[in-house]
Amino acid sequence: MSKFWSPFVKDLVPYVPGEQPKLSKLVKLNTNENPYGPSPKAIAAMQAELNDDLRLYPDPNGERLKQAVADYYGVSSKQVFVGNGSDEVLAHAFHGLFQHGQPLLFPDISYSFYPVYCGLYGIDFVQVPLDEQFQIRVEDYARPNGGIIFPNPNAPTGRVLALQAIEQLLKANPHSVVLVDEAYIDFGGETAISLVDQYPNLLVTQTLSKSRSLAGLRVGIAVGHPDLIEALERIKNSFNSYPLDRLAIAGAAAAFEDKAYFQQTCRQVIDSRERVVAGLQQLGFEVLPSAANFVFARHPHKEAAQLAAGLREQGVIVRHFKQPRIEQFLRISIGDEAQNSALLDALRGL
Amino acid sequence: MSKFWSPFVKDLVPYVPGEQPKLSKLVKLNTNENPYGPSPKAIAAMQAELNDDLRLYPDPNGERLKQAVADYYGVSSKQVFVGNGSDEVLAHAFHGLFQHGQPLLFPDISYSFYPVYCGLYGIDFVQVPLDEQFQIRVEDYARPNGGIIFPNPNAPTGRVLALQAIEQLLKANPHSVVLVDEAYIDFGGETAISLVDQYPNLLVTQTLSKSRSLAGLRVGIAVGHPDLIEALERIKNSFNSYPLDRLAIAGAAAAFEDKAYFQQTCRQVIDSRERVVAGLQQLGFEVLPSAANFVFARHPHKEAAQLAAGLREQGVIVRHFKQPRIEQFLRISIGDEAQNSALLDALRGL
Repeated sequence: MSKFWSPFVKDLVPYVPGEQPKLSKLVKLNTNENPYGPSPKAIAAMQAELNDDLRLYPDPNGERLKQAVADYYGVSSKQVFVGNGSDEVLAHAFHGLFQHGQPLLFPDISYSFYPVYCGLYGIDFVQVPLDEQFQIRVEDYARPNGGIIFPNPNAPTGRVLALQAIEQLLKANPHSVVLVDEAYIDFGGETAISLVDQYPNLLVTQTLSKSRSLAGLRVGIAVGHPDLIEALERIKNSFNSYPLDRLAIAGAAAAFEDKAYFQQTCRQVIDSRERVVAGLQQLGFEVLPSAANFVFARHPHKEAAQLAAGLREQGVIVRHFKQPRIEQFLRISIGDEAQNSALLDALRGL
Repeated sequence: MSKFWSPFVKDLVPYVPGEQPKLSKLVKLNTNENPYGPSPKAIAAMQAELNDDLRLYPDPNGERLKQAVADYYGVSSKQVFVGNGSDEVLAHAFHGLFQHGQPLLFPDISYSFYPVYCGLYGIDFVQVPLDEQFQIRVEDYARPNGGIIFPNPNAPTGRVLALQAIEQLLKANPHSVVLVDEAYIDFGGETAISLVDQYPNLLVTQTLSKSRSLAGLRVGIAVGHPDLIEALERIKNSFNSYPLDRLAIAGAAAAFEDKAYFQQTCRQVIDSRERVVAGLQQLGFEVLPSAANFVFARHPHKEAAQLAAGLREQGVIVRHFKQPRIEQFLRISIGDEAQNSALLDALRGL
């Protein structure tokens, strides 16, 4: 540790993202990217911004994108926040909404960035165990807290929580923010954005990295009561006035506007997922019910670490978490037909 | 204030960026953008990334850009940090390097984002007055501190500090990080990056928003000892793994590689600045010596606020800070020949 570091820096345990390999020949099923490219209209919108106006700052408020999101979900643009990837949006939410002297609650098996944010902002937390079927049981969250956060569908399990259960949580915690992190919602869940007008303690985040095929562009959003959005805006305007560049604002807005392409590609991923699940089950895998663009699977007799290594030798990368309760699972992103076949073929030989 | 906010949020006083007007007919000399577009090679590099690969995450480390910066300055890529605009880079530096129980020092007249970062991260600070000629006097910084930061050239004064004075500061403060914020260095100053191998307490930040004409893309860099870079990386990897999108990494790297275009456009801005200074002086203005792409000027008999309003009526926007010591100054960005003539013509009538 350097004497120049702020003291908390030495204890930071940063998030480790899935590998981004340089070899393009690999079948990359490790970071839940979409197998299909972004909407051609999103590409065209970015193309239109690729000119000398890049010398000028972007709109600091990203109004064009906020309005596109508001129109898509039938909310006001005052209920929308936009940021440089949902990771940045989540960071601001941890900073601005979760420091209340009581621990933040989230599932024991969940997005591994949550405890990292807690380390960054000095937030106490309690990890609430999922049940034996790896599901969130809302009763288990009935304890003093300074906020609640979970992905829905959960990652890396893929299991979805029904809106009814989310409402139960919201009602039971009127003094806490409940953040529903919907990175994967479009692949089989029902968004909680329909509840934001009723529950001032609900914040919903989404990313354009999954269902909208724009992981390479870094855009995330939050939707909630204007008071919650105001906290995020204050943090954002004390951190970086212009988090979204001109290309990102234009491309992301166009992606929200092109509903037909979005629905078609989501449908293709969902259909592929069902075929991958069937294929894995035929090979003897137990697969958790998935509402995401990945599946979480284990084999009763084969070591997950060995399977991951064996797949890698054949050019297929999946994600394996060395973590209690799930160390025998593989998280496998849904690819296109060729990638999914390559995966199943490779597994057949292991 | 909402009960859901983390308590510190209510006291945040966010930074207010210069206006980004929607009318493109305005002569916009208020946010120090470059009048010339980005390098055509930067545009071409972004063009090459505008494809279906945007579905994939970018390189979380932005190695291509780090290497371009390292090559440009003759340092190692381990001495380079990259972020989503230099505002983000500065935020991480405040968070990771300036929390030491002693106040951070910066000039009383300086980049108005510095006290905002201090508010965000709970950092105590002391503003050290510039001298009567609006210059930094390094002797005034000989006091206990948890770090020192200043822009060089300073903003909004435009005055530059010589490398020799910076070395004096570095030697006098071996236990503090000295951050030199070189947003405007390419328009007339000498970069302190030449000193990073000698001084482990030196961090230099730069932006691609000014001399490299990419304000709309949001890219900033820091160069310093690998230990300082490591602190920034730890914060970054606890905040957002992928701060730079695929287009930004490619465009920014190409901008650093295209030295000829960079030198030519910097030269044009510098030449224009000298003509604007002469024009302003002919109109009776006092103009501080500027090493930046803006000038800071006051008229002995005319109110700055009225001048700014009068210019605006004629479609010319400049920046006026309602702040002690400088309330009679206007900060005027250097535009292209037509913009600069429009400015001087408009002033002539006021």
